[in-house]
Amino acid sequence: MLNPDRFFDTDPSIKNIARDLYSEVKDLPIISPHGHTDPKWFADNTPFSNATDLIIISDHYIFRLLYSQGISMESIGIPSIDGTRVEQDKFKIWRIFSKNYYLFSGTPTGIWLEYIFKNIFNIEKDLNQDSSKKIYECINDKLKSKEFLPRSLYEKFNIEVLSTTDNPSDKLVSHKKINESSWDARIIPCFRPDSIINISDDQWINSIKKLESVVGYSIDSFSKYIEAIEERRSYFKEMGATSTDIGIVNPFTFELSNNEIESIFSKALAIKSSLNDSKLFTAHMLMEMARMSVEDGLVMQIHGGSYRNYNKQIYSKFGRDKGADIPLRTEYTNNLHQLLNKYGNDTNFKLIIFTLDESTYSRELAPLAGHFPSLKLGPAWWFHDSIEGMKRYRELTTETASIYNTVGFNDDARNLLSIPARHDLYRRINSNYLARLVATYRMDKAEAKRVNHALGYSLAKENYNL
Amino acid sequence: MLNPDRFFDTDPSIKNIARDLYSEVKDLPIISPHGHTDPKWFADNTPFSNATDLIIISDHYIFRLLYSQGISMESIGIPSIDGTRVEQDKFKIWRIFSKNYYLFSGTPTGIWLEYIFKNIFNIEKDLNQDSSKKIYECINDKLKSKEFLPRSLYEKFNIEVLSTTDNPSDKLVSHKKINESSWDARIIPCFRPDSIINISDDQWINSIKKLESVVGYSIDSFSKYIEAIEERRSYFKEMGATSTDIGIVNPFTFELSNNEIESIFSKALAIKSSLNDSKLFTAHMLMEMARMSVEDGLVMQIHGGSYRNYNKQIYSKFGRDKGADIPLRTEYTNNLHQLLNKYGNDTNFKLIIFTLDESTYSRELAPLAGHFPSLKLGPAWWFHDSIEGMKRYRELTTETASIYNTVGFNDDARNLLSIPARHDLYRRINSNYLARLVATYRMDKAEAKRVNHALGYSLAKENYNL
Amino acid sequence: MLNPDRFFDTDPSIKNIARDLYSEVKDLPIISPHGHTDPKWFADNTPFSNATDLIIISDHYIFRLLYSQGISMESIGIPSIDGTRVEQDKFKIWRIFSKNYYLFSGTPTGIWLEYIFKNIFNIEKDLNQDSSKKIYECINDKLKSKEFLPRSLYEKFNIEVLSTTDNPSDKLVSHKKINESSWDARIIPCFRPDSIINISDDQWINSIKKLESVVGYSIDSFSKYIEAIEERRSYFKEMGATSTDIGIVNPFTFELSNNEIESIFSKALAIKSSLNDSKLFTAHMLMEMARMSVEDGLVMQIHGGSYRNYNKQIYSKFGRDKGADIPLRTEYTNNLHQLLNKYGNDTNFKLIIFTLDESTYSRELAPLAGHFPSLKLGPAWWFHDSIEGMKRYRELTTETASIYNTVGFNDDARNLLSIPARHDLYRRINSNYLARLVATYRMDKAEAKRVNHALGYSLAKENYNL
Repeated sequence: MLNPDRFFDTDPSIKNIARDLYSEVKDLPIISPHGHTDPKWFADNTPFSNATDLIIISDHYIFRLLYSQGISMESIGIPSIDGTRVEQDKFKIWRIFSKNYYLFSGTPTGIWLEYIFKNIFNIEKDLNQDSSKKIYECINDKLKSKEFLPRSLYEKFNIEVLSTTDNPSDKLVSHKKINESSWDARIIPCFRPDSIINISDDQWINSIKKLESVVGYSIDSFSKYIEAIEERRSYFKEMGATSTDIGIVNPFTFELSNNEIESIFSKALAIKSSLNDSKLFTAHMLMEMARMSVEDGLVMQIHGGSYRNYNKQIYSKFGRDKGADIPLRTEYTNNLHQLLNKYGNDTNFKLIIFTLDESTYSRELAPLAGHFPSLKLGPAWWFHDSIEGMKRYRELTTETASIYNTVGFNDDARNLLSIPARHDLYRRINSNYLARLVATYRMDKAEAKRVNHALGYSLAKENYNL
Repeated sequence: MLNPDRFFDTDPSIKNIARDLYSEVKDLPIISPHGHTDPKWFADNTPFSNATDLIIISDHYIFRLLYSQGISMESIGIPSIDGTRVEQDKFKIWRIFSKNYYLFSGTPTGIWLEYIFKNIFNIEKDLNQDSSKKIYECINDKLKSKEFLPRSLYEKFNIEVLSTTDNPSDKLVSHKKINESSWDARIIPCFRPDSIINISDDQWINSIKKLESVVGYSIDSFSKYIEAIEERRSYFKEMGATSTDIGIVNPFTFELSNNEIESIFSKALAIKSSLNDSKLFTAHMLMEMARMSVEDGLVMQIHGGSYRNYNKQIYSKFGRDKGADIPLRTEYTNNLHQLLNKYGNDTNFKLIIFTLDESTYSRELAPLAGHFPSLKLGPAWWFHDSIEGMKRYRELTTETASIYNTVGFNDDARNLLSIPARHDLYRRINSNYLARLVATYRMDKAEAKRVNHALGYSLAKENYNL
Repeated sequence: MLNPDRFFDTDPSIKNIARDLYSEVKDLPIISPHGHTDPKWFADNTPFSNATDLIIISDHYIFRLLYSQGISMESIGIPSIDGTRVEQDKFKIWRIFSKNYYLFSGTPTGIWLEYIFKNIFNIEKDLNQDSSKKIYECINDKLKSKEFLPRSLYEKFNIEVLSTTDNPSDKLVSHKKINESSWDARIIPCFRPDSIINISDDQWINSIKKLESVVGYSIDSFSKYIEAIEERRSYFKEMGATSTDIGIVNPFTFELSNNEIESIFSKALAIKSSLNDSKLFTAHMLMEMARMSVEDGLVMQIHGGSYRNYNKQIYSKFGRDKGADIPLRTEYTNNLHQLLNKYGNDTNFKLIIFTLDESTYSRELAPLAGHFPSLKLGPAWWFHDSIEGMKRYRELTTETASIYNTVGFNDDARNLLSIPARHDLYRRINSNYLARLVATYRMDKAEAKRVNHALGYSLAKENYNL
């Protein structure tokens, strides 16, 4: 029901090549090296509860836009953390969503949802107020069926490997359970130490306590802290991890002396550290994470430039990841100087950078990736994981960095159902981008086919050591 | 004589849809919620003097480009403020303009001028040195006719509502005269307090004196100052205003204590304030303006990021608004944090942001507008109110903010004749943008029609409380 | 063998106009007002040694991308400056290049190379591992022939004037030799004082010593230093120079008092200057260079925003210009304020600005160039001298600055063979850009032809006083 030529250029001389290129990649297995699905789904393999929880309440892309149009978080059932009562009638929530579904027209969320409704649930009707109930029931019915169990979906979607994102203190019981089961799937963790790296976060002390409890010793010095991190990385690796990931506001890298870093760590434990201490601590930890990656071979990812929990009212009522993270201008050339000068020439080190500041694509990131052997560019991220965003990404990076210094796709999905939708959109946009290069004599067709396969499959596999 | 398909994609599968979409919006009434026309024109309804004054001398878009090519301001009759003699022969000026008219080829000014010449004056010839005299005379003749009187033009252009931009101390006599006349038109003021908010401006004291004289009491404290502003806002509202507007360099928002703000105000009155005082004063006043908007319901606009009167030589000789305002890099995420955290979740508050820094569209403004219920994005502004500028604006904002968090069009015109030209261009670019979405299966045609109508008419009306 | 319609839009209504426009400019003489070819080639007119030295080893665009993919600089024969042994077998290096030639697909370097192979050397085969040897031998054979001598190539390429870039202490013996020879060509120097302007460079003292030796007196004060610079500019002018060029990180301009600048100069000579001194010294020297240009009529160029020798490991082993210069965010509006206010209104002064920060095109540079009579925009530079880069440049500057405030093309080439390749690409992209304007009724065809000729020939000639 979705048009087979959707998102391709209308010009037939491009469209025909795009079709041809797409046909060769559309059924490739999915490599998903970075995302936020819950490993428990696959460990337990119990049905998803209902359309509202699965599609609306778990997805900040959806409720942020509803909220921006004056629809309260309470009315669409976003769970509060302060005891505020929120709507519990799941269908009532679904109806609000249906009525406002037109808001997503022209957005990537709208495209993913269409794929989910039409291609995964085989629903013919368009979602609106009239069809709301019928579609809600149809989805809920299917969710109860065997073919919509998490493991069935993983298989149906032809996923070859799926990485989750996990706290350093996470015991990874679900990953372990999956590994030890007879189910033949590759669901791996990714080491994300944000909670223990940001000493200005009011939860930092708690995060250190959790880390202490999982390693089983007291973390009263920076050297103990590093020991604990190395231990956890090693455990993550054992559980299948091939990468780490850090989310920071500013990618400033700077190495402190032992005395300096121990002193800041002590102040942090005593809740006496300053904002500048915090900045230096993170800068030093980026250097440490790079060093550890050189040593243990885990790929290092940096997701920078997001002001998390910008809206304090939403944060105090509903907590993190509620659509209120706002990008900031981000600088890479000066900030990454120490890290790249110490580790960037090491061909065994792999660093993947993501950005929310598109002005850095052509100015800083493509030139850096087009020089340093260790540095690769992550795909267009978050708000920019969209048709225009991916187009800009390629147009702004290819000519300077070459396609081969980019790493293929990360779906970054929270909603399992959106994974094939996102990969399909990505593969379409690549196919069309390459078709335009072919049609204007900028790339020959055989090379375009090789590149398209690399983008859709092998680059992600290679760059994430999968 | 202008091609009916101008500015549409050449590809017929897009062009045909664009044509269709455009046909449904081209005759919609014009909502003009922000601009710089002179209410006196409509109050007095006397003829415009001549082509040169109307088209060249009043329009900084035109003389800045002539000046950039080495044509002196004196030679094209820009009135000096320091007694410098400038050219008085209006036709001589027109001839210079005609000879250099090719400079505007490919610019939005060129497009507006073509519309004015061909569609409003029905001139068949192209403007150049040869046709200069004939066209000059033709325009001057028409300007004397009844159908070219300001009120006739307002009606001919099918304007439903037109907002001017006015100083807080302006008594709005023209607005009053129009309101009290039998002429059935809606010409409303907009409260723009720049002159009284920027304490580092050497005219600030004079502006406060003017404000004192209009409110009739001494403004010797910050609280009196606020009282006066509230009074004036109330008067503007009575005269039909539905919005305020602030032009600032940096949209930094920060609330000071009563003592702090009173102290800065005293220093400013004594002409002893520092640049930092000025920065803090403006930051506090943005908070105050937001508070007042929450209270009185006037929509708040911020036009940020312009370094006004950058060229001191031009400023001292010719004064303000002489084509020498230059944009600056502008930051919104951190700067608006206090304002959005205090008022941004209030669904009764409406804040409309404009920018000259296009790198903020996708990085800061679209994510903010796609979350906060009170925040909407103003259209592509000033230098970016152009074909490519509008295209970039939509491509960089729609996917993250959705079209429904933008506010339709502001023509921002100084030249009355350019109003229909600008709205026509805007409607064409929207129609073509949406046609591309339809042709590539990103939006269905029925929704594109609804969106196009909203963009061309209803969004401006709703968002400006009109 | 290269498609005659390459790089044009696929849509016939644009392509046909592009073809037509291109046909009128493709054979225009080449004006090359800024580049890095070696005047010695033309003075001596001896054959180029071999394909590897000519095409790979001298071109940082090529080896940076090879290096980014893990190929060591040593293995491709980049000469070391620290005694490190590097590969000497030129064919072995050529083979590595051939094997990795696919990396350049979709990059401007790839397009230039294709032009060189197919159009200059008439090689039919595509370069890859299999054809590597044959192509290597074919090129080497041709390089020995008379028609591939530097002077023959200059003539074959139809170059009308070619500017090199030269150190202030360079005696310009090659330029002199050419001028004095019977060969009728115009190869002129450009005064580039970077080495003597950056007092924080560890080679600064040496550069001053070289300058002393060429002027023949001691430079022990700032006034002597300025005297020496003025003398050298005058000599460069005598040797045919019409322009100067400065490469700086930040285009900050600021005038110091005589005492202040003399004091910094003394500190610099005593190797006691601070980073802030260095910043102020450069800022003052930009003002001085502008003053001198006003006086001697040399066009002033500023190439800003590159962090030179970012990778210390590469710098210490291989020296400068090794593909490790990385762009930085750059600010123009505030930084150029003093310079433009002092000299920007002078219609005898010509300042050409280049940027690596594309976010400044529409925000700062186009508005500045669209106002100040002395300021013009250099073409899309370095990483942005590419198909998409040139497209962005025009789309982001034309509507605000008009095409007539840009200066035509600079090929900036180090490789002589790439000069016609680069001009051809530039002319194609212009033709296509203008064809799109014509096809969408934004420019009439006669004007597009005039503009295309200006862009391809006369603007460079006029703006560089050639």
